[in-house]
Amino acid sequence: MLSLCYKAFHSIVCIFAIKLKENIEAMQETPIEKLGEFALINEITKNIQIQNTSTLKGVGDDAAVLSFSEKVVTTTDMLLEGIHFDLMYTPLKHLGYKAVAINVSDILAMNATPSQILLSIAVDKRFTVEMIEDFMEGVHYACEKYRVDLVGGDTTSSLTGFAISVTAIGEATEEELCYRDGAKPNELICVSGDLGASYLGLQLLEREKALFEKEGVQPDLAGHDYILERQLKPEARQDIIALLKKLKLKPTSMIDISDGLASDILQICKTSKVGCLLYEDKIPIDYTAYNMAEELNINATTCALNGGEDYELLFTLPLDAHDIIEKTPEIQTIGYITEETKGHILQTRGGAEVELKAQGWK
Amino acid sequence: MLSLCYKAFHSIVCIFAIKLKENIEAMQETPIEKLGEFALINEITKNIQIQNTSTLKGVGDDAAVLSFSEKVVTTTDMLLEGIHFDLMYTPLKHLGYKAVAINVSDILAMNATPSQILLSIAVDKRFTVEMIEDFMEGVHYACEKYRVDLVGGDTTSSLTGFAISVTAIGEATEEELCYRDGAKPNELICVSGDLGASYLGLQLLEREKALFEKEGVQPDLAGHDYILERQLKPEARQDIIALLKKLKLKPTSMIDISDGLASDILQICKTSKVGCLLYEDKIPIDYTAYNMAEELNINATTCALNGGEDYELLFTLPLDAHDIIEKTPEIQTIGYITEETKGHILQTRGGAEVELKAQGWK
Repeated sequence: MLSLCYKAFHSIVCIFAIKLKENIEAMQETPIEKLGEFALINEITKNIQIQNTSTLKGVGDDAAVLSFSEKVVTTTDMLLEGIHFDLMYTPLKHLGYKAVAINVSDILAMNATPSQILLSIAVDKRFTVEMIEDFMEGVHYACEKYRVDLVGGDTTSSLTGFAISVTAIGEATEEELCYRDGAKPNELICVSGDLGASYLGLQLLEREKALFEKEGVQPDLAGHDYILERQLKPEARQDIIALLKKLKLKPTSMIDISDGLASDILQICKTSKVGCLLYEDKIPIDYTAYNMAEELNINATTCALNGGEDYELLFTLPLDAHDIIEKTPEIQTIGYITEETKGHILQTRGGAEVELKAQGWK
Repeated sequence: MLSLCYKAFHSIVCIFAIKLKENIEAMQETPIEKLGEFALINEITKNIQIQNTSTLKGVGDDAAVLSFSEKVVTTTDMLLEGIHFDLMYTPLKHLGYKAVAINVSDILAMNATPSQILLSIAVDKRFTVEMIEDFMEGVHYACEKYRVDLVGGDTTSSLTGFAISVTAIGEATEEELCYRDGAKPNELICVSGDLGASYLGLQLLEREKALFEKEGVQPDLAGHDYILERQLKPEARQDIIALLKKLKLKPTSMIDISDGLASDILQICKTSKVGCLLYEDKIPIDYTAYNMAEELNINATTCALNGGEDYELLFTLPLDAHDIIEKTPEIQTIGYITEETKGHILQTRGGAEVELKAQGWK
């Protein structure tokens, strides 16, 4: 049962039990038409609890009203069914959580404190009130976790597919703000957590989906919790921002890794007008990701460089931060900023130097 | 030719020349794959000129950076092909303009000054770079008109259909801010411009589309410029906000008419805990809208009450504003706020009293 599955929020063993129903009546769930727009909005917003003093007025007027004493940062992302997620194996609750987390991640990458989000959703005829509630449960869970207030949004119907748009807002002092353009030669290139696991989780899900669809084989996801969670329920690294503050380290440049390490370090280099030297053997990759890469016969480093959706923080620090970072297991130094003329280089395990290349979507 | 059509931005006689092409090659337009994501973003953002001092950093980092000395208001809307617009008769340039205008309208309805927008678009395989440029031309045109800066957004592909999400941000002092909950008994209910024309424009377009599709009849839109423009390129009433300031009148409550006069006055009444009495003969309806209503055999008042998408401002003013408003042709008094127990009443031309009802989407 769909709803049973979603209830196990932290467990992802029951994915693939999810099948969007053709027959809502048989599921004993509530068709959206039964509620109408205004009642649906009430349903969606009923659990909102304002957590930030910067939120003066949330949902319920033409616009939300906010009050900031510092600089305001804002970012937006759109997620579409069939492009960014597959409801065959993505629990709606995880999806709601992820939609908030990936936007919060962009606010954190400015070294700012996330404070509000606006959320628009478009749903097609397959959706029931209960499914929207599942999605919103994930949204509220993320709002609570990251201490952001849901202050506005839009609900609409779509012809086909589920569409999600989130705008996130945050606050930072001018001194705190951290852009992409501040990296300087000889600075350390650092990354939080580990990379590539999210991409490998997606590859696993796609493989199992294909087997399930073609041959009816029940998915075998046992023991792959970590890479699946990295894909289905990524976390924004609010803890790393707090840690850097505690260590009194301010990044000279920062970005969150959404497109992949290669693409994102190249963004920093391009904006800062510098080069970089990365060491392949320093790129943090979880052992479960290595194992899956081997099983799928793909290169783990390639996954870390180009997989994307890691939502780890990539940043540069002055060279004198080296000793502190060495004693900080949450952060790994993976290379150095160089002069722009030196280009963008990856030194492989074998000692060869290859040029870093980005892979955006087409 | 598609591009020729869009060039005539202010003229809407050439609609129906718009046909989304199956064969991009034959159109000599540029497939999006040829550019890739980053080049496309460059293309979209190349014409941005920052107009507001509150914009410290626009497109180009993880988030935009803004600075406000007063309260911040923000709102968001999603527009989907097949639900909110039909590309058969909606020029992309008009659509870009409308997507901005309707969000600006929500900011104005708070009595705030719009300052920034974020824009996300998702496009499917039918789209070319030139089509996105057309859309963006309308966006830029609206940004210039309403003096808002495009400071961020997202571009992605969609499986089917064009999806647009706009978030608008504005600023107002605490004293300026105008909510929905401030209406009090005996206050005037006022509205800017005229109502119902947008809905009638849509009905005309739908009628002509049906004739064109079924019988190949060329659309006859001559003489209907006003109602078509109200539908395809609505304006946010920034001029009314300025006029009210000039007249030293501050609305006690305000909303923009997007769902229809009936639904929106009921929102004010519900939030303000008051009743209302509207006079049918006071509801401003343009004579071209009357004519079209007659031609289509529908009631013009019903269009004004429930049509929606007028984007006029609906507001309440203290009774002593009566003399000023009477001398202000841009604003019409259409009724009075009453005690909540009196209910929500429309007095018809014949003098009968009927209950006002809202019609949201299902």
